[in-house]
Amino acid sequence: MSTADKIVNAHSSDDDSYAIGVDYGTLSGRALVVRVSDGAELGSAVHEYEHAVIERNLPASGAKLPPDWALQDPEDYREVLRRAVPEALRAAGVAAEQVVGIGVDFTACTVLPTLADGTPLCELPEFRDRPHAYVKLWKHHAAQPQADRINDLAHEREEPWIGRYGGKISSEWEYAKGLQLLEEDPEIYSRAARWIEATDWITWQLTGTETRNACTAGYKGILQDGARPNDAYLAALNPDFVGFTAKLEHPVSPLGARAGGLTKEAAEWTGLAEGTAVCVGNVDAHVTAPAVEAVEPGRMVAIMGTSTCHVVSGPGGTEPADVAGMCGVVDGGIIAGLWGYEAGQSGVGDIFAWFTNDFVGPELHAAAIERGITIHELLTEQAEAQRPGEHGLVALDWESGNRSVLVDHALSGVIVGLTLATEPHEVYRSLLEATAFGTRVIIEALKAGGVEVTEYIAAGGLTKNAFLMQMYADVLRCPVSLAGSAQAPALGAAIHAAVAAGAYPDVPSAAHAMGSLIPNAYLPDPDRADAYDLLFAEYLTLHDYFGRGGNDVLHRLHEIKAGK
Amino acid sequence: MSTADKIVNAHSSDDDSYAIGVDYGTLSGRALVVRVSDGAELGSAVHEYEHAVIERNLPASGAKLPPDWALQDPEDYREVLRRAVPEALRAAGVAAEQVVGIGVDFTACTVLPTLADGTPLCELPEFRDRPHAYVKLWKHHAAQPQADRINDLAHEREEPWIGRYGGKISSEWEYAKGLQLLEEDPEIYSRAARWIEATDWITWQLTGTETRNACTAGYKGILQDGARPNDAYLAALNPDFVGFTAKLEHPVSPLGARAGGLTKEAAEWTGLAEGTAVCVGNVDAHVTAPAVEAVEPGRMVAIMGTSTCHVVSGPGGTEPADVAGMCGVVDGGIIAGLWGYEAGQSGVGDIFAWFTNDFVGPELHAAAIERGITIHELLTEQAEAQRPGEHGLVALDWESGNRSVLVDHALSGVIVGLTLATEPHEVYRSLLEATAFGTRVIIEALKAGGVEVTEYIAAGGLTKNAFLMQMYADVLRCPVSLAGSAQAPALGAAIHAAVAAGAYPDVPSAAHAMGSLIPNAYLPDPDRADAYDLLFAEYLTLHDYFGRGGNDVLHRLHEIKAGK
Repeated sequence: MSTADKIVNAHSSDDDSYAIGVDYGTLSGRALVVRVSDGAELGSAVHEYEHAVIERNLPASGAKLPPDWALQDPEDYREVLRRAVPEALRAAGVAAEQVVGIGVDFTACTVLPTLADGTPLCELPEFRDRPHAYVKLWKHHAAQPQADRINDLAHEREEPWIGRYGGKISSEWEYAKGLQLLEEDPEIYSRAARWIEATDWITWQLTGTETRNACTAGYKGILQDGARPNDAYLAALNPDFVGFTAKLEHPVSPLGARAGGLTKEAAEWTGLAEGTAVCVGNVDAHVTAPAVEAVEPGRMVAIMGTSTCHVVSGPGGTEPADVAGMCGVVDGGIIAGLWGYEAGQSGVGDIFAWFTNDFVGPELHAAAIERGITIHELLTEQAEAQRPGEHGLVALDWESGNRSVLVDHALSGVIVGLTLATEPHEVYRSLLEATAFGTRVIIEALKAGGVEVTEYIAAGGLTKNAFLMQMYADVLRCPVSLAGSAQAPALGAAIHAAVAAGAYPDVPSAAHAMGSLIPNAYLPDPDRADAYDLLFAEYLTLHDYFGRGGNDVLHRLHEIKAGK
Repeated sequence: MSTADKIVNAHSSDDDSYAIGVDYGTLSGRALVVRVSDGAELGSAVHEYEHAVIERNLPASGAKLPPDWALQDPEDYREVLRRAVPEALRAAGVAAEQVVGIGVDFTACTVLPTLADGTPLCELPEFRDRPHAYVKLWKHHAAQPQADRINDLAHEREEPWIGRYGGKISSEWEYAKGLQLLEEDPEIYSRAARWIEATDWITWQLTGTETRNACTAGYKGILQDGARPNDAYLAALNPDFVGFTAKLEHPVSPLGARAGGLTKEAAEWTGLAEGTAVCVGNVDAHVTAPAVEAVEPGRMVAIMGTSTCHVVSGPGGTEPADVAGMCGVVDGGIIAGLWGYEAGQSGVGDIFAWFTNDFVGPELHAAAIERGITIHELLTEQAEAQRPGEHGLVALDWESGNRSVLVDHALSGVIVGLTLATEPHEVYRSLLEATAFGTRVIIEALKAGGVEVTEYIAAGGLTKNAFLMQMYADVLRCPVSLAGSAQAPALGAAIHAAVAAGAYPDVPSAAHAMGSLIPNAYLPDPDRADAYDLLFAEYLTLHDYFGRGGNDVLHRLHEIKAGK
């Protein structure tokens, strides 16, 4: 299914040139046509993947997938090029000749095995019914045992790169998924000449030549200081894993570089001119930074949805700042020439949804329906009527574990201060606050390590909640700016495409011309900030007690739960 | 409104003699006709108080009451005698001449000011519109400031009696309510020749002569080792409070003693013969012990409803065992000649109701309705399908504070171990478990102080939940017996009445003949008990961390909430 929108705040002119950003999400791809001169968004179109996320059965054979699997079909990605790009062009009223460049961003780590020419192994007839031949989506979590071994061994051997990832390589990333592939389907593994991020693969489909981008190579592919985990380490993991790195190796392109020109075939798919500049791949979160002009050190971008991803650049140089517990620290990982710091909170909007779906009684749901508002809006309205602390609650936002600072997925949520008078909107508010406190812990860790954070720029679905945004400003004592575009990742991809096309000398200058920001949309209120400080102090004490070994009850409960 | 039931499992005979127990609850009074020989329940009747609990406006004048007030009208108590007693007799098919004794039990501390002849001050025309002239029900909590001063001063002066009450006199009790009366309506205070528990007052109405019972005198009236708080202490509280004790003083009767014979007027009310033996007053929780044959040391009775009250006797002697944090330790407070220990959990069924009312989503409520079961039954069924610990949760049962062991009403509830997969029935189960763990803490404190607890006898509304009862057996590693009567307090009052009538030499022998118990209804399962031990260890660590100063966050949240 595709939908296209003509965006009304700008009109195309024959004199203008345009760039196209294609944002590959979890369930669909969106193409956005952007004017190169000022970033005006002329038209967009969304195409939903036919196979969505393959989690239960493989479509080709019906074969049942084990738990925690999440696959995709790469043909669905090509279809976005065939459907969404032409539709967005039509909606924008822009001619193919006016488009100077195209670029993509993607979920990550979303990775697939291909032949040396880029053919996905799942497209070979003999492998159609082999689950391991497909794309492993970012949320494929079945490589956890492999990730655990990768981490244990890295710490044992004191591998230098492990510190750049908060001491933990995720089960979502290239090495863990690659090791799972080797150990569970060695034939597919051996046939995989390339093990490639989907963002690089789709770019390859556009240009006919392989490229690798600095962002995924660093954040997902353990490329640090020009090197990857060495053979001795790989051999200790599994003797047959030696040589895995060769499936990844390729000269790494800086973000915003030209990957090549559009092939004749890709030109036919997209309706664009053959030879149109194509930018190297990028990642949805990271590409959002230039979309909101966050191209200088200190400007943190938070993509706030079911989870929150924080990206912020720090000064360039040979060594990054020493910040523990980040998801990743990558040279040029966000902006070429700067160290890119990525952090995250594994549960944010997810926590709010979990609570409202399961833990709010029928009367409140009925009241929301009667008023024609969402349960979130109703609870927010009720919560907003209280002063900070009036609910008497403090919560820890670990219902989905802790991704940054503590980097501990066995942690779980805590609520403290419940009384028989406690009402759902109060618990709801305490959960909102907990996520703000979690963000503050991350920012304070960055600052303590020497990474400046001067502005908090929010993007993503949660920015709609004004009460939440004001709360973040108050809790962080920091202005909260908002992304100006509702489709910031696609805008970011278009900015990169404009750079690849040579319309701007670099991403920062393109970002300032084309990016879109609502600066200081929320300013901290000193009185509320003082009140939140009291609650944050309690949060921090509980954070350390439950998260840093004061009481390992959450780990023990995790094991008791698992029946260990 | 009154309702009467003929109880079908026994038939009256002209040769039998009967005793009547009248159980005064918060909203109604119940009369029960019991055969003296074997405790068979022949008939009962309930009469609801016309004025129920007076919490908002005084009926006589419409005067608005302040928060935390809870009054009653003593005429409602007389009406129970006029309505429920004759109806119970009719339902039982028992003649007045066959009734040898009548006794009451009451909520406590429920207390009223009267003239020297027992006339309630609220029945004097000039005081009809004076709130302080009425009965203050047990749950009148507006004397908390006075209670705080009583406690602070007692500790400051190291008064010997304070230790007998877990270091804390409740705002519900006679001295706190009396001091509030003095300070807020000195005229009523000075006219109050007597300050008397409702259980003693209604007994006075039956006999025409004042008596005071050992149970309320000790648990609610601070009578210890024959003495009450002395004048120097009272003067330090408030110079005008000196002499308060005179409003209470009266020879104290042991439980089961004869208070007198039914007056002509009371005989007319009840339809009983003038001169019928009347027993001294008693309290609903304590009177339940003989109703379930718990008349020897070590047999704990737990009345499990919105809250739980635990009573257990220990050996007699000049000094009780040294158990910290009890609600009260009273010589002969449950059974004459034994030390009576009372403990409590301020929130039990209340916590379950709070959670199910407000924190369970519409789908589960709809499913329960469709199946024609309560939401409690549905959640219990779901919870029962899991093994102990499978939910990964531990909760502290302090949503209504902690009444015993910690004796701290500023504490609040904690839930630990929440994940995005946590479902309502899992939280529900963790709350059930928390109350079982809370009971275990009380029992272990008693044992540590030298008070044996060998059996747990449950009475009250929660005994209907078989899953909960089994959980208590497993958590406590102790057989759970059940009250055999659905109206155990009224049965207990009838047992005392039989003793007062001389049908038995003492309460224990009457209890063994008339009491009713389902022994060992639930036996601990060793495997589940082992699994619960792991969770209890976590409960205990959190109990001490949050309750004994490891982290005073609950107190600080209580103050932040109050805006201090």
